[in-house]
Amino acid sequence: MSGLTTYNALDWSVANCPIGRTMEILGERWTVIVLREVFNGIRRFDDLRVRTDIPRQVLSNRLAKLVDHGILRRTPYREPGARQRYEYRLTEQGLDLYPVLIAIRDWGDKYLAGPEGSPLRIEHRECGAPVHTELYCESGHRVTTPRDAVPRPGPGARRRPNV
Amino acid sequence: MSGLTTYNALDWSVANCPIGRTMEILGERWTVIVLREVFNGIRRFDDLRVRTDIPRQVLSNRLAKLVDHGILRRTPYREPGARQRYEYRLTEQGLDLYPVLIAIRDWGDKYLAGPEGSPLRIEHRECGAPVHTELYCESGHRVTTPRDAVPRPGPGARRRPNV
Repeated sequence: MSGLTTYNALDWSVANCPIGRTMEILGERWTVIVLREVFNGIRRFDDLRVRTDIPRQVLSNRLAKLVDHGILRRTPYREPGARQRYEYRLTEQGLDLYPVLIAIRDWGDKYLAGPEGSPLRIEHRECGAPVHTELYCESGHRVTTPRDAVPRPGPGARRRPNV
Repeated sequence: MSGLTTYNALDWSVANCPIGRTMEILGERWTVIVLREVFNGIRRFDDLRVRTDIPRQVLSNRLAKLVDHGILRRTPYREPGARQRYEYRLTEQGLDLYPVLIAIRDWGDKYLAGPEGSPLRIEHRECGAPVHTELYCESGHRVTTPRDAVPRPGPGARRRPNV
């Protein structure tokens, strides 16, 4: 790719960085764990409490924030004789976080699993083979190392002020 | 995949969950931002400070934790007339976090970018096409929605006690 400007990160602002913006939502303690549970089909407050041991108030805050950001939606349900309660389901925007969760899971499986191996296997519904995240370019080449990926200023790049 | 046990998350322990274990490292405020910077080629403490505005002590703690977990390594350098300092580089284990960062970036680009678009483009070195994360199964099928992925207990699965 000779002829293109070399990207020097120090010249550019991080004010509108998509990773920074995403981590403002996902970067709070427990938020990713809450999402893991919802992806695992756990939708009700009390079940989320039982599986995760997240303090009530913290869990309540995290769920509210995920609803506010359009990642979860709250749906009412009522069991016989009980008052109306809510369960939490992933929106399309929430479902799109799946590659983030699987990428985290892949890394944890590789570096932090005990000798017994991973507690969770995720299979392709159609063929049963395990599912992972991979890096691909839009021309269909697999990118196997970050050394094969080159950062460039995108359309929204802003120069860092006062440099 | 009929014939296989249905996975009911509530029956299983999360004690050794790879997402939980990974988030014990990555789940602290600023840690992912520090990694973003190192992936962008920012390696020195003062440069990290300038780009991110992370408070000194917090940045120092996050870097130390990433070194402790084998994600970054500290390398000494000395500029003429100055005392010895350190820069931070990704280990192989750290480089393997790249899909996590790109998955977060992809989601942020899709849902949180301003009208001007993403500030960062990541290109395949060989062909120049933009790089993204994708989900694939080990048989080579692309998995386009979490609905096509099925969780199952893995070899390290432990039943939840006292249920």
